[in-house]
Amino acid sequence: AVRPLRRRQPKKSNELPQANRLPGIFDDVHGSHGRQVCRRHELYVSFQDLGWLDWVIAPQGYSAYYCEGECSFPLDSCMNATNHAILQSLVHLMMPDAVPKACCAPTKLSATSVLYYDSSNNVILRKHRNMVVKACGCH
Amino acid sequence: AVRPLRRRQPKKSNELPQANRLPGIFDDVHGSHGRQVCRRHELYVSFQDLGWLDWVIAPQGYSAYYCEGECSFPLDSCMNATNHAILQSLVHLMMPDAVPKACCAPTKLSATSVLYYDSSNNVILRKHRNMVVKACGCH
Repeated sequence: AVRPLRRRQPKKSNELPQANRLPGIFDDVHGSHGRQVCRRHELYVSFQDLGWLDWVIAPQGYSAYYCEGECSFPLDSCMNATNHAILQSLVHLMMPDAVPKACCAPTKLSATSVLYYDSSNNVILRKHRNMVVKACGCH
Repeated sequence: AVRPLRRRQPKKSNELPQANRLPGIFDDVHGSHGRQVCRRHELYVSFQDLGWLDWVIAPQGYSAYYCEGECSFPLDSCMNATNHAILQSLVHLMMPDAVPKACCAPTKLSATSVLYYDSSNNVILRKHRNMVVKACGCH
């Protein structure tokens, strides 16, 4: 006997079948009332404001950026969402008070070089990792 | 002439001198009034509750965990904080309305295997990446 095709057919993909687009569970879900989606924002960090100019020689500051915004279901493909973040946003829909949304965090960071005095007053030029946000996503 | 030693001496370390422990800027900062620090929480995701049991054969669900909690200055070393997160938590102290705290997100995820029907009704066993939170941190 030929088995009837299943009603809900997940698309062919090597990732978790895109739970975002699975019909049925929350068809009428909308974005979160216009609040901004997760994205990268400008942020210039001034070493002077941090009170670091007595040991940092250069630069005076740098563009660090930061991530902020909503990670609401359905997570758009540009949200760099992990499978876990997709599942968490689904669970949040069902239990908003028990489980938070996935959070908007850096998914790619780059280094920046800083010239400073070390504890023995030597002048050091060092590349510090994970100082500049290159991309944000829901994690 | 021998130059006087500088007043604030960052410790020797290859990372950004632990801005958390630099004296002076915010000596009197305290934790955020007892709110829980960023950590991993239990979360069992039931595929039945998600309405997925018509295409997921096994398991019925799995322990996904999630991350939640405060990422307040000073970020403890167990917070797996990046240099950027440390700087962001410092900037947040100075401009709490302009820049959010770093957020509590998964820093390590692992895969889990799912047996399911694909769109042509074939039974597929696939390892899905980034499904289980192994560790959380401030990012």
